[in-house]
Amino acid sequence: MKNVLILGGDGFCGWPTALHLSALGHRVTIIDNLSRRAIDEELGADSLTPIAPIMERLATWEAVSGETIPFAYIDVARDYDAFRDLITDLRPDTIIQFAEQRAAPYSMKDTTRKIFTIDNNVNATHNVLAAITETGIDAHVVHLGTMGIYGYDESRVEIPEGYLDVYVPGENRDISKRSILYPTNPGSVHHLTKSMDQLMFQFYAKNDGLRITDLQQGIVWGTQTEETRRHPALINRFDYDGDFGTVLNRFLMQAAVGHPLTVHGTGGQTRAFINIQDTVRCIAMAVDNPPSAGARVKIRNQMTECHRVRDLARMISDVTGARIAFVDNPRNEPDENELVVSNKSFIDLGLEPVTLESGLLTETIEVSRRYADRCRMEMIPCVSTWTDRQRPGIAETPMAA
Amino acid sequence: MKNVLILGGDGFCGWPTALHLSALGHRVTIIDNLSRRAIDEELGADSLTPIAPIMERLATWEAVSGETIPFAYIDVARDYDAFRDLITDLRPDTIIQFAEQRAAPYSMKDTTRKIFTIDNNVNATHNVLAAITETGIDAHVVHLGTMGIYGYDESRVEIPEGYLDVYVPGENRDISKRSILYPTNPGSVHHLTKSMDQLMFQFYAKNDGLRITDLQQGIVWGTQTEETRRHPALINRFDYDGDFGTVLNRFLMQAAVGHPLTVHGTGGQTRAFINIQDTVRCIAMAVDNPPSAGARVKIRNQMTECHRVRDLARMISDVTGARIAFVDNPRNEPDENELVVSNKSFIDLGLEPVTLESGLLTETIEVSRRYADRCRMEMIPCVSTWTDRQRPGIAETPMAA
Repeated sequence: MKNVLILGGDGFCGWPTALHLSALGHRVTIIDNLSRRAIDEELGADSLTPIAPIMERLATWEAVSGETIPFAYIDVARDYDAFRDLITDLRPDTIIQFAEQRAAPYSMKDTTRKIFTIDNNVNATHNVLAAITETGIDAHVVHLGTMGIYGYDESRVEIPEGYLDVYVPGENRDISKRSILYPTNPGSVHHLTKSMDQLMFQFYAKNDGLRITDLQQGIVWGTQTEETRRHPALINRFDYDGDFGTVLNRFLMQAAVGHPLTVHGTGGQTRAFINIQDTVRCIAMAVDNPPSAGARVKIRNQMTECHRVRDLARMISDVTGARIAFVDNPRNEPDENELVVSNKSFIDLGLEPVTLESGLLTETIEVSRRYADRCRMEMIPCVSTWTDRQRPGIAETPMAA
Repeated sequence: MKNVLILGGDGFCGWPTALHLSALGHRVTIIDNLSRRAIDEELGADSLTPIAPIMERLATWEAVSGETIPFAYIDVARDYDAFRDLITDLRPDTIIQFAEQRAAPYSMKDTTRKIFTIDNNVNATHNVLAAITETGIDAHVVHLGTMGIYGYDESRVEIPEGYLDVYVPGENRDISKRSILYPTNPGSVHHLTKSMDQLMFQFYAKNDGLRITDLQQGIVWGTQTEETRRHPALINRFDYDGDFGTVLNRFLMQAAVGHPLTVHGTGGQTRAFINIQDTVRCIAMAVDNPPSAGARVKIRNQMTECHRVRDLARMISDVTGARIAFVDNPRNEPDENELVVSNKSFIDLGLEPVTLESGLLTETIEVSRRYADRCRMEMIPCVSTWTDRQRPGIAETPMAA
């Protein structure tokens, strides 16, 4: 069992990961600056599910599991010394880096949020790498990236796990084969930071021999995991607002409160998805399977299935009877794209995906219904736009259309 | 003639660029936080040439040329609002981004300098892009990058200007051709930031239609340009210390003061070079030839010739009689590499390179000799090492060897 430090362990992926690893017997410590809770205040949004204060969450986990998870309030991007001192004392085997601003629409909301996302995400990740290098602690870094870095070009090639084999024309008409980092094409400032993280990982793995796993995650859906279900004070976040709500959870929420399912553009965008229960399982597998020292960064695609957005809407409409409303797309992206993704490395490690057909879809609808009275309808539309040439789509195509 | 704003206009490349563009008739404004002068104080190093205070430089330029160059003291990485307000008033046609920490050894000196380099360079460049986007000013961004992002792998392929044509195996045994950003392999935290800058440029060109030129520059040698020669108070920096001194200038200085030429490792590293006079000419050509709106980032290799480090040492030894000392290499890099680089885009624009064979080599030796009494011998060795496993090479192989 490993000594695991989770940065951003109070967040949507961080919290259920902390509980899952603790339940598996790992020794878990959480660092968080609680910025996700602060952004709730800033946006006047809130998790649909009522989330307990961090100390109450941790005390509840200790009561139900007998396991203690220490918590340190540190801003990893801003307070390098506190972070370095903590890892010097703790000497973790694994550092899981979730301490990044994770929402694409929030990162495009305005200049202040663009600057915050770049500054926070890049400096936080770099501070982790610099601290491991400075202290000489042999910690495996597990970082949460995003499928969004690959971009959604009209490519008929399966998206590989991080590295693409290409042929380069050389001298004397030679063709040489090279395995390169997949040429990224991020679609928002948030995705851009994950693409920049990749370059920092490549450098620190090469120059300092750091062991790093980068998980390119699909869009997460669902709320609860085996562990968060064990007590109401352990419940996970459920974001349904236009900035932090992910598409499938927003549809499920909209259905629960009788709001039309708002599909951006034609809904022809094909995206990769994963259930939160599979997220925590994948991270546990990544923790157990670090790359060796001196190896290149291990990149795994953390997703289980691909769907078109409009097909998801139809699926949920069929189950719930909700109407579908097509609204302008706030994003600067192709209307339609194909997407085929390899997730071989997790399948090889034994992942048995939870798919949309399974019971968890119903469970998530039930969670939405249980807390529907907490929903603030005005938070549902995405009012962040990708460029100034665009206006909020919702204003141009009334919801009732 | 254009309205040009130069960020970092007090630095080694920024200052002669400002004078050259002013002499050509452009309307030039400088922003600088004078951090390069502050680093001189921090390191106890100094330019070999005595550089005048910025206000004296500017007053002298006005006296000799009749042209006024306004100066604003702004930290672009830290004071976004001041920067945005200035461009809102000035409405520049061109913004030249030199406001980055430029030394690889300094960026690897210790954790504090690694963090500073990432934080300063990434935030400064992002603030430029965000401010142009927010204000809607149609300014062409000209950014100084580095040849070092390409890496020094044993590749027999000519390094193209930013984009590499590759073949990707697809479905049904199809092979599709793609033009991708050259897969970078930066060799220091400084080079890493330039590689991260590329991704930001790609995103803002795509999402916001920004017009951007990225100049991947070779190692600059020489000190004076036509304009800096016009008065002693206009003289350019000459860095000879282990952190900021570039290899050829360090050799020329060492020869001037009777110090052996210190070659790192075998000296088999092949690098790309450019004279400072060609740097300012290239930048003027880049300013005159912006990409069109909606085009991808225009990447130009700003270099004129490639040489092995030990061949440079021999060349200078032949001219000056200086001895050569091989010392341990502080960098984590291959001992020997080949390098062939395309600089077609500047040649096509009419660049006639100043080469090492020309008279400027002698001129630079003369500048070194004139100010040799200002040289502090103890600043010459590079004491920054790339990893903790290395110690300063100079300590292991005495200079006298």
